[in-house]
Amino acid sequence: MIWYKDNNSDIAVSTRIRLARNLDKTPFPNALGDTKEVTERIKNAVLSSNSTLAKDFDFIDLDQTPAIRKQEMAEKHLISPDMCGGKGRSVLVSKDETMSIMLMEEDHIRLQIIQSGYALDEAYKTASRVDDVIEESLTYAFDNEFGYLTACPTNTGTGMRASVMLHLPALTMTENINRVISSAGSLGIEVRGLYGEGTKAYGCLYQISNRSTLGISEEKSLERLKSTVDRIVDMENKAREALKTNSADALADKVYRSYGILKYARNMSSAEAKSLLSDVMLGADMGILSFKGKVTPLECMVMTEPALICGGEELKPEDRDRKRAEFIRGNI
Amino acid sequence: MIWYKDNNSDIAVSTRIRLARNLDKTPFPNALGDTKEVTERIKNAVLSSNSTLAKDFDFIDLDQTPAIRKQEMAEKHLISPDMCGGKGRSVLVSKDETMSIMLMEEDHIRLQIIQSGYALDEAYKTASRVDDVIEESLTYAFDNEFGYLTACPTNTGTGMRASVMLHLPALTMTENINRVISSAGSLGIEVRGLYGEGTKAYGCLYQISNRSTLGISEEKSLERLKSTVDRIVDMENKAREALKTNSADALADKVYRSYGILKYARNMSSAEAKSLLSDVMLGADMGILSFKGKVTPLECMVMTEPALICGGEELKPEDRDRKRAEFIRGNI
Repeated sequence: MIWYKDNNSDIAVSTRIRLARNLDKTPFPNALGDTKEVTERIKNAVLSSNSTLAKDFDFIDLDQTPAIRKQEMAEKHLISPDMCGGKGRSVLVSKDETMSIMLMEEDHIRLQIIQSGYALDEAYKTASRVDDVIEESLTYAFDNEFGYLTACPTNTGTGMRASVMLHLPALTMTENINRVISSAGSLGIEVRGLYGEGTKAYGCLYQISNRSTLGISEEKSLERLKSTVDRIVDMENKAREALKTNSADALADKVYRSYGILKYARNMSSAEAKSLLSDVMLGADMGILSFKGKVTPLECMVMTEPALICGGEELKPEDRDRKRAEFIRGNI
Repeated sequence: MIWYKDNNSDIAVSTRIRLARNLDKTPFPNALGDTKEVTERIKNAVLSSNSTLAKDFDFIDLDQTPAIRKQEMAEKHLISPDMCGGKGRSVLVSKDETMSIMLMEEDHIRLQIIQSGYALDEAYKTASRVDDVIEESLTYAFDNEFGYLTACPTNTGTGMRASVMLHLPALTMTENINRVISSAGSLGIEVRGLYGEGTKAYGCLYQISNRSTLGISEEKSLERLKSTVDRIVDMENKAREALKTNSADALADKVYRSYGILKYARNMSSAEAKSLLSDVMLGADMGILSFKGKVTPLECMVMTEPALICGGEELKPEDRDRKRAEFIRGNI
């Protein structure tokens, strides 16, 4: 299921597995020059395979895609923000938008599975299946000692980045989040913002992911990540309980005020929308407010992102803010 | 009509006429010692008069009145905040709460007419009528040169303070209010907060009143006040037009956000309630938001004042804030 469309998500909102792969005896994209031939080979490996997966995918040449559409894809996490720029890049996207294969990002292939809920094993299984389909007709750059070779040494080995997106409003409100981030770090687990490295945790959404790819198996890596995610989820639950016990009134007031503003505001920035929607998500999760909107707060966050809210038009920032407020009023 | 119950008020919310009077050959209250005998004489002058007004009034001995009830009366502007303290004080209040006669405030008699809308002549006529009823059986301290004698020389002469309460959100938002206050001052007109001298203009409500009582007739004084009020109302209207022209979107956003918070908040201070209700009042006046509440924003401001919201109970501040939010949610 599309990662932001889950109605049952609580703390663990979505799961993502990304595999970095490169073709054997082929320069990495940054040294490749013309990317056409390599792109064609990978595209064919997927689209012409005998697997049922073949007809799931659509090929999108990003050089032929308007900037606003590329940004929409980045907002849906189908491509990395970095893929919005550059030349010679393309992506294969599954019709249900849970699978995408970025071509000529940092590596030749960045295969990604992203789905709703906390489903690391399921997502990894799907990723391996797609990986196998590609490997049926192509040979990966692989070293018996190091593992998969990648453009950046931080990905060499498994080439895998597994991550779980957690909604951590209580740990944020109680100011325990920095402690969580640094203790996860000491276990080789990274805690990053909504759009990955160096981005802010808008809407109290944090990506928890494995850092090590070298000298560790995929299974071991997933296990480590799961144990940290479980621990953070537990801490968030405890922080929610503490809020309930110590400041139930203030919390209910905050949740309902955010809901009231979302229901009535006429202009709203993306950052404010995420922050208020995060409060409403928390309120719904904790049974403070019963949420009967047409879309979930998480879907509302994504659908009101700067490009997605424009619906393909180029809008001025003030028109975008007005359209965002209108969408939110009508849908939550 | 009760001053805060007007549904048609726009900028000029309410009108008040206050006459300060003292009995002839009788020390002012602060030098009087026992106030019983003088109180009795004035009370009888009103309640035993042949006028139809006699049965309009109820006598309330403030020494026998619980503090919270006195505060309620102050919040309804039936007595001055000063009357909540002290000893030997009482008040005659008309059943429709538009007339009150405070006994043993600074002067023996503080006769007050307070009603909704902009009605200086009407209110002054009523005040004179009540004044005449009292004078039928009592002799006022009056000097042919100075006029009515009062405890404080600033009231000597007409003993009249006429005031109009104006709702000036646009002049406040556009930061022109201080210019208005100082230019009114140079015309002998005072601009003060919601509860009179030295109080803050919560809810953008300002009392505009005459300063001079000496060497000027009541008629002339009312005329001067009216011309200043008319000018300020005109400036407020122009400021509203300017907001409409220059920042319609931001204004609508502000009005609707305030409405959303009022509709959903769980706890609210009196100051915040007044500020948000002022936005909603402005929005309704300007046709931005159609207001269908059970009470007007102005009535909501008064009914959620710290004592009135308690409904006669002694409540802790947090319970009061919760009850206020509840009242507002249910009534606007």
